[in-house]
Amino acid sequence: MSTGVGARGKFITIEGIEGVGKTTNLQWVRQCLSEQGLEVVTTREPGGTPLAEQIRELLLTPRDDVMDATAELLLVFAARAQHLASLIKPGLQAGKWVLCDRFTDATFAYQGGGRGLDQDTICTLESLVQEDLRPDLVILLDIQPELGLSRARRRSKPDRFEQEAVAFFSRVRQAYLRRAASDPERYLIIDAGQPLADVQRNIHNGLLDFCRRSGGAI
Amino acid sequence: MSTGVGARGKFITIEGIEGVGKTTNLQWVRQCLSEQGLEVVTTREPGGTPLAEQIRELLLTPRDDVMDATAELLLVFAARAQHLASLIKPGLQAGKWVLCDRFTDATFAYQGGGRGLDQDTICTLESLVQEDLRPDLVILLDIQPELGLSRARRRSKPDRFEQEAVAFFSRVRQAYLRRAASDPERYLIIDAGQPLADVQRNIHNGLLDFCRRSGGAI
Repeated sequence: MSTGVGARGKFITIEGIEGVGKTTNLQWVRQCLSEQGLEVVTTREPGGTPLAEQIRELLLTPRDDVMDATAELLLVFAARAQHLASLIKPGLQAGKWVLCDRFTDATFAYQGGGRGLDQDTICTLESLVQEDLRPDLVILLDIQPELGLSRARRRSKPDRFEQEAVAFFSRVRQAYLRRAASDPERYLIIDAGQPLADVQRNIHNGLLDFCRRSGGAI
Repeated sequence: MSTGVGARGKFITIEGIEGVGKTTNLQWVRQCLSEQGLEVVTTREPGGTPLAEQIRELLLTPRDDVMDATAELLLVFAARAQHLASLIKPGLQAGKWVLCDRFTDATFAYQGGGRGLDQDTICTLESLVQEDLRPDLVILLDIQPELGLSRARRRSKPDRFEQEAVAFFSRVRQAYLRRAASDPERYLIIDAGQPLADVQRNIHNGLLDFCRRSGGAI
């Protein structure tokens, strides 16, 4: 697909468990793309619009009552439906590259792998909300859960997900890796345990390769 | 089904458009059932639990941004999943009669009839969230939209749904009536334009009939 006038922009997502360096590396991806003259919109999930950010608060704030796993899954997709309708799709249609901190891979990893919800249920909701829209490239920052969590816990008070045990994040990580293995062309797996300079060089090379393959402008 | 010790309670919902008198008549239904010695839990949708009430706030509060119709639908079912898991199902399993101000018929009427969302999508979510649980009896309070809205607007500042036009509520009403017509055994249609004493006598008679048919204690 060309990125010329009138063409749909590319949709790139960054995934990984807590403490993997998504925020830092999202800025790096943005910089790599912007230096090529591409118009980039950065956003995040859950969130990205006023309503979706309110849903994010419900999802992340630690609470006294137990959140039902199906309720959590539906809240995630409610936020996603709003995000797609009011930001992601209009951005892509205007030819912008949309760069999102987490998307549906995180749902398969956290609610599927982590919570054990049925994959088919997640697939049903994915089709209902996204129709045929999928990320063009998923940058999966991969790290040992123990290392990621120790980084995340130094940074801030744990949110509702960060309060989970290491075993939860091991299941999340394995679910991410299984998805990447099932569609290697669309996933760029980065060893996020390396020094930052190496992580960023690998991301840059992966982006070059993606753009070459997809006829992008980089 | 018997209502003896160990038996599941009955699940009764009250439906209808704004201004139809759901609150008053819910108390009446509760009174009719309680006088028969039944243990009744009254609740409402969206809501009924702390999380579901927070979702209710998102759904009803008028807002500056446009809420995507699919996001709205998923929020409704997220609240319902939580409500079912933490209140409705445990109540029924404990042998209580659960009496709910609105349930999934309202989703078919408001999001389906009112907003024009696909019925099959709603059916998919209904099965996902409820499995085979459906109300044992739906009391549908029916009124001309003009009359209902004029009552509702005298009562309080309009919420996000009450701000809709009469044509919206005409579609909602028709969707309710179609559902009732398709399964008349399970729906008790009450003309809510009558004087309150007549409305309540009809509800009482309908409840007597329901309890006779289902082997209840009334």
